[in-house]
Amino acid sequence: MEVTRRNFKDSLNAVYSAIEEADFLAIDGEFSGISDGPNVSALTNGLDTPEERYTKLKKHSMDFLLFQFGICTFTYDQTKSKYIIKPFNFYIFPKPFNRTSPDIKFICQSSSIDFLASQGFDFNKVFCNGIPYLNQEEEAQLREQTEERRNQHANGVGTPSYISPSSSKGPAHVPEEHKDFINRVILCFANLLSIFYFFIMFCVVGLWRFTICLSLTGFPRGFTWKPSRQKRLERKERFIQVSKVDDEERKRREQQKLEKEQEELNDAVGFSRVVHAISKSHIVFYLSTCRLLDTKLMASTQPFKVRNDHQHLAGRSLNPADTFLPSLTETAEGFPSYDTAQEQLHEAGYDAYITGLCFVSMANYLGSFLTPPKAYISARSKLIEPFFNKLFLMRIIDIPYLNITGPDLQPKRDHVLYVTFPKEWKTSDLYQLFSAFGNIQVSWIDDTSAFVSLSQTDQVQIAMNTSRYAESYRIQTYAEYIQAKQEKEKSGQTPKTWGEDGWVKSHYSSTTSAGFGYPRCTSAASHCRFQHHAQTDSVSLVCFLYISGFFFICFFFFCSRGLRKRSISPAQGEQAAGDAPITDGWSHYSYPDSAGGKKMKTDGV
Amino acid sequence: MEVTRRNFKDSLNAVYSAIEEADFLAIDGEFSGISDGPNVSALTNGLDTPEERYTKLKKHSMDFLLFQFGICTFTYDQTKSKYIIKPFNFYIFPKPFNRTSPDIKFICQSSSIDFLASQGFDFNKVFCNGIPYLNQEEEAQLREQTEERRNQHANGVGTPSYISPSSSKGPAHVPEEHKDFINRVILCFANLLSIFYFFIMFCVVGLWRFTICLSLTGFPRGFTWKPSRQKRLERKERFIQVSKVDDEERKRREQQKLEKEQEELNDAVGFSRVVHAISKSHIVFYLSTCRLLDTKLMASTQPFKVRNDHQHLAGRSLNPADTFLPSLTETAEGFPSYDTAQEQLHEAGYDAYITGLCFVSMANYLGSFLTPPKAYISARSKLIEPFFNKLFLMRIIDIPYLNITGPDLQPKRDHVLYVTFPKEWKTSDLYQLFSAFGNIQVSWIDDTSAFVSLSQTDQVQIAMNTSRYAESYRIQTYAEYIQAKQEKEKSGQTPKTWGEDGWVKSHYSSTTSAGFGYPRCTSAASHCRFQHHAQTDSVSLVCFLYISGFFFICFFFFCSRGLRKRSISPAQGEQAAGDAPITDGWSHYSYPDSAGGKKMKTDGV
Repeated sequence: MEVTRRNFKDSLNAVYSAIEEADFLAIDGEFSGISDGPNVSALTNGLDTPEERYTKLKKHSMDFLLFQFGICTFTYDQTKSKYIIKPFNFYIFPKPFNRTSPDIKFICQSSSIDFLASQGFDFNKVFCNGIPYLNQEEEAQLREQTEERRNQHANGVGTPSYISPSSSKGPAHVPEEHKDFINRVILCFANLLSIFYFFIMFCVVGLWRFTICLSLTGFPRGFTWKPSRQKRLERKERFIQVSKVDDEERKRREQQKLEKEQEELNDAVGFSRVVHAISKSHIVFYLSTCRLLDTKLMASTQPFKVRNDHQHLAGRSLNPADTFLPSLTETAEGFPSYDTAQEQLHEAGYDAYITGLCFVSMANYLGSFLTPPKAYISARSKLIEPFFNKLFLMRIIDIPYLNITGPDLQPKRDHVLYVTFPKEWKTSDLYQLFSAFGNIQVSWIDDTSAFVSLSQTDQVQIAMNTSRYAESYRIQTYAEYIQAKQEKEKSGQTPKTWGEDGWVKSHYSSTTSAGFGYPRCTSAASHCRFQHHAQTDSVSLVCFLYISGFFFICFFFFCSRGLRKRSISPAQGEQAAGDAPITDGWSHYSYPDSAGGKKMKTDGV
Repeated sequence: MEVTRRNFKDSLNAVYSAIEEADFLAIDGEFSGISDGPNVSALTNGLDTPEERYTKLKKHSMDFLLFQFGICTFTYDQTKSKYIIKPFNFYIFPKPFNRTSPDIKFICQSSSIDFLASQGFDFNKVFCNGIPYLNQEEEAQLREQTEERRNQHANGVGTPSYISPSSSKGPAHVPEEHKDFINRVILCFANLLSIFYFFIMFCVVGLWRFTICLSLTGFPRGFTWKPSRQKRLERKERFIQVSKVDDEERKRREQQKLEKEQEELNDAVGFSRVVHAISKSHIVFYLSTCRLLDTKLMASTQPFKVRNDHQHLAGRSLNPADTFLPSLTETAEGFPSYDTAQEQLHEAGYDAYITGLCFVSMANYLGSFLTPPKAYISARSKLIEPFFNKLFLMRIIDIPYLNITGPDLQPKRDHVLYVTFPKEWKTSDLYQLFSAFGNIQVSWIDDTSAFVSLSQTDQVQIAMNTSRYAESYRIQTYAEYIQAKQEKEKSGQTPKTWGEDGWVKSHYSSTTSAGFGYPRCTSAASHCRFQHHAQTDSVSLVCFLYISGFFFICFFFFCSRGLRKRSISPAQGEQAAGDAPITDGWSHYSYPDSAGGKKMKTDGV
């Protein structure tokens, strides 16, 4: 279902109920760029820690815009033995909702725009009919302003529409010497209104100010007025229409106005309402543990790694020969169905659908290792658990994933040296320097530093010894390097929010600073890392998903309805799951590799 | 005429000849934003110097993209007593021309995009079919690379296609110990080619490197080869097709290749070819004096200032009652004609046309002051001269324009004080501080400083005296402030170019640093300011036009064919013009104001 600003409100209930009933949902996004700094291959290093990689990618991706967001919900129908899918394709654009709302600036990368254009992407639809959104800070600010106006109103401080939006001065004070004048004008109004139903008052600047005073200090009951400007007149000429109303009519109008304001506020929050619905839904959080799955990581892990066709699936290029795949799903009534034969890759809704299909196929493949084999593996199966909350890390030699809810893997890097040298040095200089140590691998950090991996760990000490008296370069062990880095980083990374000028700005937040900068963070701290993105800043949830895998990443939000009862006691809950808790799903989990035989496992659900 | 990437090459000759034959041309642009920092009203100050204003606006506008460029040429037809117009509407987008070309990042401002969208702007056309461009630096670099490859080729260093684009290593050196191996492979090739017309060679990484060596050190005559990759294979598997050619065939192919390269280079330069054509044309430069005219400035000057309808014209909202206006022009054959009744505002081609129409109307209005009155005033008339090379300055109290070819006006600001104070101060604090001096005007600079204009100059010294012992605030005269600023700024502003990561980067340039930072710059230095924009950096010419007036600015490039002869001697030339040279057209030029009578003037042409 295509959702734009035009049908957003009408579609919201369908979106909410699709999320509520789903077993899992798949998402995808199309963005205005990939890296606003160096290109990704220059930016990343094969020996980045997950923290470093995360920080680097985040730093250079936060100012891009999400043009399109795809959601595909999957609900298993036992009778049909099929997933019923509901795909949504949202067009998104931060149209300023009024003159004082943030005028967001975003970056576009020519190559990304060119790529989307070549795929037939409809930019006109985005810019003309994109659904607006607010991040949580903006939303809170707007709600506060509305609330303030309401309270003022409830306290009888006149209708609030004449407070200048840009004014932060508070209610005006009417000087004593003007009160007599004001009273005379009011009397004059009353006389006029005893003759005419309404009249229009030409307003010189001073009188305009007088009416503002009135609106703030309390205008006598029985009047209402609205500003009236004529286009053709000069800016300083303003008119006010004054008319007579009784109390009931006044109340009715005020009620109408409040309702309109509430609706405008909801319109401004826009697409963030969908993100809220996902964040708050039972699919994502159980015992405040978030459940996401990255198909790219799943496909590049045993037993899928060896199966080329699944690799292809992870890259979302459906093999036309796999005609059985679409038969695993059926499009819900009222939703336009996708034709996998005619690929619509890079339409976010379609990509989300294909991603979900990849997951279903891979999950079912796991069932073939069970005794007896199972054709259908549910999204709640224990077989899937090891893949939860782990994001694929591209081009990192020895760490397959970033763990978003637990400590990251600590690879042995005893054979790695951190070398600093003059700017003029090239790779060949490093090869020459380490020529005595056989094969080495160089990972550049910047102009004056690089990691050098030796082939044998016991050579590290020799290299360190020989470098002791060197003047032009300096060698540290990897452990020394990490320690120095941690000390330097204790000042901490800071998250960003939109500033007044429409750009993201850094600020400090106690929630998030705990999660950054330390390679060995506790599970709680790591969890904060996600919480920040999912909850503090609605839209960055999406950015976060994006940066980890460059178009190929998607996540599954898992439904765990049955487990909800246990939320009373976490400890009880763990035991009630039946099996002993899996502390680190990855290391304790084994699939038959290409050489070994099948291991027996039972499906935990 | 709409010009996109698809018909750009076919349209170029029409564009060139339109520029060549024109009496003047009008331009307009549509951009992706206005200010990437604070909004323009917050950024600018009523007491900015022209230099400050220029620097501020430039700083916050260089990263926007020009989506559309409109040119309308006007050529007077004596027999028809009409201008024959040729409007062009170019769609522009910096599509990367190959994998190594700069991947430009640009900023979009939501409000600007939303505005264009509401005007029916076709973003899909821009992104899919926009004409690419290169700035002069990129173009020079590309030309140099092509030239280098040609020279290598001419020196017989093999065909150059195998130099890795990302490699900066220069030609490979074939080690002595490999030469024997290479010779054996060549012999093997020769044997194979005596049997087959061509063969495809599977290429493991080492052999691939070997062929690169060959291509750089010289491959024996009689062979040709091209790389051949199969999509379905893994990245490291490459094939090379080797085939037999005779010398003639080889030369023919090489010639073809050079021609193709030249064409690709021209394609990459793209829209900049049009900008070059304008810059180099006789319309713009005479005796290296550039001739530009800003209709917004013209319309806000006597005698146009008092005529509301011309003000409207300057803002380009044609009065439907002015049916006589379109009759001043006729669209050239083969060009689609605009219907002014159905306004197509914010299509750059149409806006350029309307801008030109405004100019024609205003120029002719000047003719009504002549004795006898003249109905048609040519673009080469001396009546127009006072408006040359002056850009409208929005919201500056006492300086009407920025002079791009001479010293800027130096207004008296003897009554202005520069005040610094604590961050907490508000406007009311300043009013209170200066309450003894009657009416004052406050122009904020930043959180802790502002200009305060007193109503009487003789109060300045009193204010200075009373502030002598103040601790919380500090007062300087305007002259003291300017002097301190000049000393501080001696380090100078620096212009920008595109960096390797696709962002504009600062660098030093002797041409331009002379023109910035000093309010009283010489005519030569001021001229550099324009030269830089018009010639050093093609695309910023457009930005420069844009920033000075926010969508309302346009310029006319004047044709002065008759004066061309004088280019032999500037001094002679000035005398040959007949009249005494006007040193400062503005101050010596007078039009009847609304109160006074008509002054007699004769048309100098």
